Amino acid sequence: MNTMSYRVGGNTLKVPAKLFAENRSRLVAALKGKAQPGSVVLLQGGTEKNRYNTDAEDLPFRQESYFFWAFGVHESEFFGTIDVESGKSCLFAPTLDPSYAIWDGKINNADYFKTKYEVDQVVFNGEHVISDYLSNHNAKNLLLLRAENSDSGVVLEPPTFAGKEKFNVDVKLLYPTMAELRVFKTDKELEVMRYACKIASEAHKATMKAIRAGLYEYQMESVFRHTSYYHGGCRHLAYTCIAASGANGSILHYGHANAPNDKQIKDGDMCLFDMGPEYACYASDVTTSFPANGKFTDKQKIVYNAVLDANRSVFKAAKPGVRWTDMHMLAEKVILTHLKNAGLLTGDVDAMLAARIGAVFMPHGLGHFLGLDVHDCGGYLGDATPRSKLPGLSSLRVTRTLKERMVITIEPGCYFIDTLLDAAFNNPEQAKFLVKDEINKYRGQGGVRIEDDVVIWEKGTENMTFVPRTVEEIEHFMASEVLNDSTISKSVSDHLSKH
Amino acid sequence: MNTMSYRVGGNTLKVPAKLFAENRSRLVAALKGKAQPGSVVLLQGGTEKNRYNTDAEDLPFRQESYFFWAFGVHESEFFGTIDVESGKSCLFAPTLDPSYAIWDGKINNADYFKTKYEVDQVVFNGEHVISDYLSNHNAKNLLLLRAENSDSGVVLEPPTFAGKEKFNVDVKLLYPTMAELRVFKTDKELEVMRYACKIASEAHKATMKAIRAGLYEYQMESVFRHTSYYHGGCRHLAYTCIAASGANGSILHYGHANAPNDKQIKDGDMCLFDMGPEYACYASDVTTSFPANGKFTDKQKIVYNAVLDANRSVFKAAKPGVRWTDMHMLAEKVILTHLKNAGLLTGDVDAMLAARIGAVFMPHGLGHFLGLDVHDCGGYLGDATPRSKLPGLSSLRVTRTLKERMVITIEPGCYFIDTLLDAAFNNPEQAKFLVKDEINKYRGQGGVRIEDDVVIWEKGTENMTFVPRTVEEIEHFMASEVLNDSTISKSVSDHLSKH
Repeated sequence: MNTMSYRVGGNTLKVPAKLFAENRSRLVAALKGKAQPGSVVLLQGGTEKNRYNTDAEDLPFRQESYFFWAFGVHESEFFGTIDVESGKSCLFAPTLDPSYAIWDGKINNADYFKTKYEVDQVVFNGEHVISDYLSNHNAKNLLLLRAENSDSGVVLEPPTFAGKEKFNVDVKLLYPTMAELRVFKTDKELEVMRYACKIASEAHKATMKAIRAGLYEYQMESVFRHTSYYHGGCRHLAYTCIAASGANGSILHYGHANAPNDKQIKDGDMCLFDMGPEYACYASDVTTSFPANGKFTDKQKIVYNAVLDANRSVFKAAKPGVRWTDMHMLAEKVILTHLKNAGLLTGDVDAMLAARIGAVFMPHGLGHFLGLDVHDCGGYLGDATPRSKLPGLSSLRVTRTLKERMVITIEPGCYFIDTLLDAAFNNPEQAKFLVKDEINKYRGQGGVRIEDDVVIWEKGTENMTFVPRTVEEIEHFMASEVLNDSTISKSVSDHLSKH
Repeated sequence: MNTMSYRVGGNTLKVPAKLFAENRSRLVAALKGKAQPGSVVLLQGGTEKNRYNTDAEDLPFRQESYFFWAFGVHESEFFGTIDVESGKSCLFAPTLDPSYAIWDGKINNADYFKTKYEVDQVVFNGEHVISDYLSNHNAKNLLLLRAENSDSGVVLEPPTFAGKEKFNVDVKLLYPTMAELRVFKTDKELEVMRYACKIASEAHKATMKAIRAGLYEYQMESVFRHTSYYHGGCRHLAYTCIAASGANGSILHYGHANAPNDKQIKDGDMCLFDMGPEYACYASDVTTSFPANGKFTDKQKIVYNAVLDANRSVFKAAKPGVRWTDMHMLAEKVILTHLKNAGLLTGDVDAMLAARIGAVFMPHGLGHFLGLDVHDCGGYLGDATPRSKLPGLSSLRVTRTLKERMVITIEPGCYFIDTLLDAAFNNPEQAKFLVKDEINKYRGQGGVRIEDDVVIWEKGTENMTFVPRTVEEIEHFMASEVLNDSTISKSVSDHLSKH
């Protein structure tokens, strides 16, 4: 049987509609026994938003992640239902004005959407259509999504529609159920994430080859975006590009509108590029750190190798049953040990950890879940411990024990941040571990972050990121590897034929 | 004296803070005599928005256009006031948490913003700060912006802040005053628009050189975006890219999420690329139409030359005192005459115009104001005639007479749209002009649109768009011109040194 799938272009990944059918089946299985009889899941997709009061948008519509997880629908203004007892699904497509055919394209019929998205039924929406449908299908209890983001606190509000008051409404059951399912990626989802991460890797390599002193950071962002889209079909990024050079590497979320990657890159700068495209809404999130001129200085090497060792140590230790908070502490310990060996710190490393010296150099969390959102949901569900109040640990977006099929980023970093160093020097409990004169030699150097996207498996963690990582690999790659449109294209083709 | 200016990188345009100071002066002059004594303009800038309930955004914040026009502030969460009597301006900057220094960058002081934006005062915002400031400055009447977009109908709501109830509020005076001022561009604004349009031109030329059969439309969008950003510093586009090939050229707003530029480009396809970046929030909006293989067929030439003649005829006829609606009719007339000469139409051209045959082939308006928004405000202010109910004319975004310093797009088009042709064939009042067998030979060919961004002057209209336009220029350019990073870079430098 011919199965439907989505892909952007000829040399991009096919994403089967079955991926989302499987997600719906998982949701139904998880709800059975928990939901009251006559329960129907009703989800609302995203709506198009113009810039302020205008009639235009810069980047096109991007679907809401929970809705996409369940239905894989790329178009705006949809609703969808899943009957918990029968498992039957229905999509409510917007009824389009005939003028749509002139301005926006073909008006498709119900069969088109039914085949494209492999749902049981497609109905065109209108006043009372949803409530009539639900009544006719004997729905008694609506399971609606009210999702509070555990990092931002922003709430995705439950759908509204005419006639909603005729039904019992439950906004408690669906969120933890769906969010928990989203934490564990299916084989089909992992194929998409491997692809997104492959494209991120190729685009990072392209920036490493394109860089030279005198160019501006935003030009490297542009190379990254272009490579992701041209070669990978990734129209959207998973987050704003961080293309930091020199001291900017110590600004953790550099690259936003107030700090828009606008510095000129200098010979001798260390670069920290944290950039990831998404494909079919699945995110990648990769950070590379490398010297702009392709050759590490001794001081850059010390910091880089500390972070790389932390990254590799966590990669080896991460496995089912291990708590992520412990991985964070392991990363801190490895970095502090390196800094001590290099003469920047003095004293007992365990005592440093207790005094939170780790958070002076790495104020962010070690990593986060990755999926349809770059900071994916579920980090504080399950067996998570409550958010810590301690520096560094308070920034963790996940405190759970690891399990198979979790996708998480491993992204230790080491930064020389003036405000944090100044505070630590002024805090006797911390200052005693710090060798001020040595540390001050590193100020202004920025920071290093090494971020991989990995899948947790019993048999060993899988790294989906493929970029030069050791000092030797980076120096060799920047000096000698050939990278052009045809080598990138071939690399993507090779990935597609292997998967 | 050293004046402050904004630019993205080394080879991009400097935008002086004076541009916005001048806009504020124009606003004060326009309000004097109209506003009550004790009037103060209070504007609210845009706020950052994450994707749905997440804590991430894909593209960074972009300022609201009215606020940007008055203050030139790129950062989010600002307010600003202008005292109508004294002309003094004050910016209210957000008070940032100390952790901002770790995550987002340097926390700047009031002097930094005062110098950067050349305002009279900068105050850090907080509860009651704005109302206290207004009370202390004897503000009695607040002029707030309530702006309804005349194309989308979407309303930009007036600012809210604690203590607002203590003041008289006027939401009627500011909108027409500001919108009308925005219609007429100052010399400083025109410099920015010439630059944005220059970058659009270079990026269009880059796509014309990069195209070949077998590639996908989105890859051409990617080339365009990359050229605009890498060479022009344009991080944002003014609107979603339309990169249509073949039949897709007849979908006027192709390229959105439901039709995402995902067709493979075929040998023999006509391309219609409507794409424009913005620089310092000022938009460009350029459409090129050309054959994918660089060589026009006879039928492509007939349609192309009809549209080019319409574009050139309007360009010559457009001048102060001429009504834009008449220019729309002129464009229709030129196109219909060409189609008649080519045997697609029969009968009297004026009778065709009356029967609205023009709108069968060009259902959109001839052009629109351009400025901080791609469809800029003010098209139905001034001496505008009410929106027509007639096909084609009802789509006009401007019905005013032209005046100096208006920036408007001239974008005639000719399309073969099945639903419109079918309806016309079935309408005896229209069918009598149509040579069905000849027209049907063009079905599936898509469409042609030729869009320039121009400035209206007494001495003659200024075209800010520089791309190959005649059949001969296009064929020569695609076959023989050299275009690479260094030629583009030099072309941008030359533009900057001339301006």
